[in-house]
Amino acid sequence: MLPKRCFDALVKIAGADNCYMDQAHRQAYSYDATRQVFEPDAVVFPRDEEDVRAILRYANENKIPIAPRGAGSGFTGGSLSVEGGVTLALEKHMNKILEIDLENMIARVQPAVINKDLQNAAEAQGLFYPPDPASQDYSTIGGNVSENAGGMRAAKYGITKNFVLALRAVLPDGELIRAGKKTVKDVAGYNITGLLTASEGTLAVITEITLKLLPKPKMTLTAMGIFSNVSTAMNAVFKSFINGVTPVAMEFLDNLTIRAVESAYKKGLPSDAGALLIVEVDGNIEADIKWQMETIEKTFKDNGCGAFFTANGEMERDAIWFARRNASQSLKVYGPTKLNEDITVPRSALSELLSRIEAIGKKYDHQIPCFGHTGDGNVHVNVMTNIQDAVRYHNAEKAIREIFEAAIDLEGTLSGEHGIGISKAPFMRMAFSESEMNLFRTIKKALDPNNILNPGKMGL
Amino acid sequence: MLPKRCFDALVKIAGADNCYMDQAHRQAYSYDATRQVFEPDAVVFPRDEEDVRAILRYANENKIPIAPRGAGSGFTGGSLSVEGGVTLALEKHMNKILEIDLENMIARVQPAVINKDLQNAAEAQGLFYPPDPASQDYSTIGGNVSENAGGMRAAKYGITKNFVLALRAVLPDGELIRAGKKTVKDVAGYNITGLLTASEGTLAVITEITLKLLPKPKMTLTAMGIFSNVSTAMNAVFKSFINGVTPVAMEFLDNLTIRAVESAYKKGLPSDAGALLIVEVDGNIEADIKWQMETIEKTFKDNGCGAFFTANGEMERDAIWFARRNASQSLKVYGPTKLNEDITVPRSALSELLSRIEAIGKKYDHQIPCFGHTGDGNVHVNVMTNIQDAVRYHNAEKAIREIFEAAIDLEGTLSGEHGIGISKAPFMRMAFSESEMNLFRTIKKALDPNNILNPGKMGL
Repeated sequence: MLPKRCFDALVKIAGADNCYMDQAHRQAYSYDATRQVFEPDAVVFPRDEEDVRAILRYANENKIPIAPRGAGSGFTGGSLSVEGGVTLALEKHMNKILEIDLENMIARVQPAVINKDLQNAAEAQGLFYPPDPASQDYSTIGGNVSENAGGMRAAKYGITKNFVLALRAVLPDGELIRAGKKTVKDVAGYNITGLLTASEGTLAVITEITLKLLPKPKMTLTAMGIFSNVSTAMNAVFKSFINGVTPVAMEFLDNLTIRAVESAYKKGLPSDAGALLIVEVDGNIEADIKWQMETIEKTFKDNGCGAFFTANGEMERDAIWFARRNASQSLKVYGPTKLNEDITVPRSALSELLSRIEAIGKKYDHQIPCFGHTGDGNVHVNVMTNIQDAVRYHNAEKAIREIFEAAIDLEGTLSGEHGIGISKAPFMRMAFSESEMNLFRTIKKALDPNNILNPGKMGL
Repeated sequence: MLPKRCFDALVKIAGADNCYMDQAHRQAYSYDATRQVFEPDAVVFPRDEEDVRAILRYANENKIPIAPRGAGSGFTGGSLSVEGGVTLALEKHMNKILEIDLENMIARVQPAVINKDLQNAAEAQGLFYPPDPASQDYSTIGGNVSENAGGMRAAKYGITKNFVLALRAVLPDGELIRAGKKTVKDVAGYNITGLLTASEGTLAVITEITLKLLPKPKMTLTAMGIFSNVSTAMNAVFKSFINGVTPVAMEFLDNLTIRAVESAYKKGLPSDAGALLIVEVDGNIEADIKWQMETIEKTFKDNGCGAFFTANGEMERDAIWFARRNASQSLKVYGPTKLNEDITVPRSALSELLSRIEAIGKKYDHQIPCFGHTGDGNVHVNVMTNIQDAVRYHNAEKAIREIFEAAIDLEGTLSGEHGIGISKAPFMRMAFSESEMNLFRTIKKALDPNNILNPGKMGL
């Protein structure tokens, strides 16, 4: 529990209407998309960067844990106050788009701006912010930066870190730093922008973010290819890239996922297909997007694609995307509890990964439907289990561990998009050597010697 | 001087034919493109990563400075042994392309691979490594990563850091770490890849680099636009981007540079033009590159461009590029000594920056021709002076300081491409606050407590 004198000090900094210790607030800020629950001792809504500085300075002097929080939509517990202390909820006041600078094609935002709001504000000026995590309607840019969020467009446009040009951030001792510039090129000093991106709120509290924007491509074209098995589909994916086309999205659904969507929505999907690939290309002129799609169609058909449909108009496009958009929620037919992981492997290893996952599913008698972003090797693996059945759930956890092992064995990563937080912390030693873990700890200790910022995360 | 027992220990690690203390070697490795001279006590050519580990472990225990060196082509002294000790010359043995992986579109290289050799190896397989610093024919990928090199294609494709997916590196205590993966998405652990990129050899010795490659665009189109003054030219630059075209290159020459090239080569350049813009676009189909170039031509003409020539064929393309390629060496007509800096400002501030530089030139009675990469706001500023004339040279140095001040005032950076090294170290306090400098020092001290790696750099 936070001593009253500490709470009073926080009230003095941020005002009584921005500091709460009541049960309702503590509960409301106790969970995120992991559904795990950790109640903070207090919830504070800083009004601005100066509040953040004063709060951190005080917390550092008094060794109070601080968990920065945007929308609390993370999948790995990044925003949870696992060691109590203060949830620093940025959503209430620090949620403004400060600038869309058309001349330099950059956006300057506060951390709690919603991803989709930024996308919309950019598009209103003919610009484009590509990172589009599935949580885009509610997740915040600060959270996206802290977890280095990806999305469907990553194969062509990259992930959040590729768009962060500059940051303002407050270090644990309350010192303000600026890192990076409004320019693509800046090589003065260490790459602090790069270090803070993906640091999951453990090194600094980000108070302002400058992002690169692109000109908005004028048109897109969407298609669907049906394959008899996953292996030929995965092969067709990297052949398309080699043939010179970088699609915006190259999403896949495996047979289990196709059947789940079909049984839930009856859209006429081919339930016997081994895999379905959804492709979207973008460009500025008709001839270009047609060339891209024709190249993909030819590559697919040369590589085992049974049927290929190109969307004609917005309705057909929506119909194609329907299966992908509703994949996740359809999976409950296979079990009431979903353990969903976002491992990533090099594109060429996708086929091998999926066959290993199938074997793991058989070994532990669980259905493991997979879908995701094949363009960048990022697979959402869903072990469908039942948390009420202890034996079964334990087997599901063993399956998860073996899936991580397979990913790492195939030169992949524990997490393509969701971060480590607490959910994947137990697996860090599987992925990193003692020297590498020591390096992480050295950096954490150097920047946050009192371990006040988001303690208990990342397996540090 | 290095004690004999230390040299003997190094010989024991790397072999007698890879360790030198003779005058010839010490002199050969005493300079880089800055023309400053610092003789190392010894030059060692590690054969492999294990040699690097053993050398660093020994150096760390014995507090021997180590300066990693690729081609020694840096403009800021990054590879110079400014505090003596050992130059760790990677060029002799650690210079192999280990893998061009077509399926995943990545390259895995040792640090001393020459940039252009990698570009060629990638292109032989239909792939493309975009970062193209002017030094591409001789600079190494390890040096490019350490300094985060840019180049002409940065506005469209980004700079070195945007292509580094993973690294192997040796920490000062000899521990080996791997950072990043062969995948675009990887969010497990701190972004060590990002931190080591641009760290100028002060935190670790990079022993292997995994780079993202792209499909090679099938065609390019090149053009030249002539403007009566710099301000309208700079305006046309960002208008082109807003109109949806991201050119591969958007290079400019100011009037002084145009006249210098013309007086040296008599190519019929318009000596009275205020600025000349060279544009290159790329794509996969004729219709797309034509659309891009027509959009640029229209934008230029709507914004003060007097004449616009699109190259018809390779010869005309070479003719257009001739002026830009020979800009740097033509400038000596304005003075025997060139102080060349690579400041960068947001694109929208380019016009203001150039007019301030003109005023600074007048104030100190120096010609300051400028050219560079307008697409990303990166200007090569050349203060033409005479190092033999103490008064004049002193004024040139004052001009440089004022130019840096102008860049920072316009939200720009001390260095867009060249790094800090020793040349720009005196200006770090102009660009960074005490808190920011402290953060750099905290990181340096945490990772290299004995300060053996490239000491005396970056103004730390």
